[in-house]
Amino acid sequence: MSDLSRRGRSVPASPIRRLVPLADQAKKRGITVHHLNIGQPDIATPEAFFDAVRRFRVPVLAYAPSEGIAELRDAMSGYFRNSGLGVAPEEIVITTGGSEAILFALAAVTDPGDEIVTFEPLYPNYLGFAAMLGIEVRVVTTRAEDGYHLPQPEELERAIGPRTRAILYCSPGNPTGTVLRREEIEQLVEAARRHDLFLFADEVYREIVYEGVRAPSLIEVAAASGIEDRAVVLDSVSKRFNLCGARIGALVTRNAELRASAVRMAQARLSSPTLGQIGAAALMDLPPAHFEVLRAEYRRRRDIVHEALTAIPGVLCRRPEGAFYVFARLPIARKGIGDSDDLARFLLTDFEEGKETVMVAPGTGFYATPASASNPAGADEIRIAYVLESDRLRRAMAIFRHGLEKFCAV
Amino acid sequence: MSDLSRRGRSVPASPIRRLVPLADQAKKRGITVHHLNIGQPDIATPEAFFDAVRRFRVPVLAYAPSEGIAELRDAMSGYFRNSGLGVAPEEIVITTGGSEAILFALAAVTDPGDEIVTFEPLYPNYLGFAAMLGIEVRVVTTRAEDGYHLPQPEELERAIGPRTRAILYCSPGNPTGTVLRREEIEQLVEAARRHDLFLFADEVYREIVYEGVRAPSLIEVAAASGIEDRAVVLDSVSKRFNLCGARIGALVTRNAELRASAVRMAQARLSSPTLGQIGAAALMDLPPAHFEVLRAEYRRRRDIVHEALTAIPGVLCRRPEGAFYVFARLPIARKGIGDSDDLARFLLTDFEEGKETVMVAPGTGFYATPASASNPAGADEIRIAYVLESDRLRRAMAIFRHGLEKFCAV
Repeated sequence: MSDLSRRGRSVPASPIRRLVPLADQAKKRGITVHHLNIGQPDIATPEAFFDAVRRFRVPVLAYAPSEGIAELRDAMSGYFRNSGLGVAPEEIVITTGGSEAILFALAAVTDPGDEIVTFEPLYPNYLGFAAMLGIEVRVVTTRAEDGYHLPQPEELERAIGPRTRAILYCSPGNPTGTVLRREEIEQLVEAARRHDLFLFADEVYREIVYEGVRAPSLIEVAAASGIEDRAVVLDSVSKRFNLCGARIGALVTRNAELRASAVRMAQARLSSPTLGQIGAAALMDLPPAHFEVLRAEYRRRRDIVHEALTAIPGVLCRRPEGAFYVFARLPIARKGIGDSDDLARFLLTDFEEGKETVMVAPGTGFYATPASASNPAGADEIRIAYVLESDRLRRAMAIFRHGLEKFCAV
Repeated sequence: MSDLSRRGRSVPASPIRRLVPLADQAKKRGITVHHLNIGQPDIATPEAFFDAVRRFRVPVLAYAPSEGIAELRDAMSGYFRNSGLGVAPEEIVITTGGSEAILFALAAVTDPGDEIVTFEPLYPNYLGFAAMLGIEVRVVTTRAEDGYHLPQPEELERAIGPRTRAILYCSPGNPTGTVLRREEIEQLVEAARRHDLFLFADEVYREIVYEGVRAPSLIEVAAASGIEDRAVVLDSVSKRFNLCGARIGALVTRNAELRASAVRMAQARLSSPTLGQIGAAALMDLPPAHFEVLRAEYRRRRDIVHEALTAIPGVLCRRPEGAFYVFARLPIARKGIGDSDDLARFLLTDFEEGKETVMVAPGTGFYATPASASNPAGADEIRIAYVLESDRLRRAMAIFRHGLEKFCAV
């Protein structure tokens, strides 16, 4: 039979979903698995979404305009205005999830063989889209000691080569929870200007920040720096409105040529889901209280996870400034102790506490560079998503600690 | 500022949407535009879809599994069984529209620079996905005289080269309405076997066939020929259930490796829309009467369009066997008369009849080869989508005739 292409074989499996069969087997053994591994929060979708969907009475569920329905683009422009960001409806291309915004942006500026630069630990799906498009991902490693903030500018300089077309970053960050400071984004802006690159900001966790930290949007930094033509914001309604299943995102840029290219790609796939757009449009003017409640809830959870982790001897874990993930370095992956993959497996296959266990995401899935002496590439790190309510999360963290202790003692 | 990539610039605009601004201007002048240009039918979405969506009460609109919700895959397997096609739920990867099934299938078997072969007049979005993936499309031209059936096998042989990875066809066909006979599909199967290629069948119009014609599915032809490992069906619920805006399709294959690759791409984009999947699942066991009513309605409309066109002197238009399009050759594009683009523009800008006009899709948008002496490449052809109810369609065709006459007389 015919073989797949290199591309078809090289699109990576989701590192998070790889362990799902083990979790399923644990559940079959009657064990409750607390999922700390995925970015699917348990927080309720605002009822106004479902109300709008149910109120939407049409005889035919028709294609939406490829660039998104006017009602949603207008409403999203209003949401940006409420966030202090000036974005006209015409500067927004509605996409099928933030995922498609990433795909369109990368496709618009790269040819096969070109490179983009991003930072690890990274959102692993960047690698999937790059593989689909036949482009290379060069990575700059950020470190637990620095709270996963940007390293010295030279490290970014070293990653940029003649085929680099764009710098891509995620802030507030998945998987690190790190929020880049304005000076850091300005550093990226300068690198983009100096090397004639596009700058892509994945800002899907924009509002999920703590202690009064504000996540500066590339929209404002680029405007202040006069590089709006190079700046593209990749956005999604999934996390800020608990709409993961709606599949509605956006590509936002002042670069009309890039937008036109994205719209042509959008025409090829006809339209984004109509019902998701109708429902999402109804949430764009939720009052600030919506985000305050969201932040308060996630902050409570973050503190539970952070306190539980730092109470474990040998764990290095800075308190993250945003998103709903903690990336922690554990005292594993050393002589005689397995790595984070082994730990995640162990918790699902060889450990339980009162018929309960936890599932965590091994750090290895968030690195693009292979492990080396200077960079264990996640072998000693895990990501915990605090997507469970406080009591359950507290219980899950106690179980995790006991599991880790047992893993280290084995 | 930084430039887009060759890819970013080369993704083609939808030829159908290109004329939209002219239609909008006509509407602003108070003219009613009958849209014969797009594949968005006016037939009602079955109420069971909306009922299922409204009944779906969950606190959180969560991600669906990347490969699709089990309920929909099971129900779709049942739909295939009712259609006489044996497809297990595990052989189905749910995609975001048939569009994404095309993207995933092409990406799985091609590397940048590889080629696929398809037939023109073609579904123009194939070109968009090929451009995004950095692959070339070689085309075999089918002709109005042959009812757009396959030409002599030598023509296909000539199009296949060392970098060809797959043959892609659409039957019942958009834009031609042609339904390939079983022997024609067998001819493609043999070519795929001989040249070690994949064979992709776009079967989204499967049930929309007339006069007892049956569109043989690649699922059955491949099974009978023992090439199931090479065969992939690209499918969608959009046309057969009037669910264009739901964005639910499927990639169906017995090739486990290709399916695994598609699932990994599906993981990168997380999931297809949850509400669309819930609603679509409720339609998969609609009784045969649903399709009989659909066919009867489209057949009535086809006859109206076909009769109206053949009554115009100089028009060549075979009666199509399926889908809801007529591709017709007009007595234009000759000395002193403009081509199909000019005609489509003329109808929107310089013609009206009682404050009404029509919008048609110029044939040029459905060809990949440039016009030449032997192949006018759509300059003298148009596509009419019979997506309006009979009375309106009759009126629209009368207006079209008068518009064409005036265009030819100018």
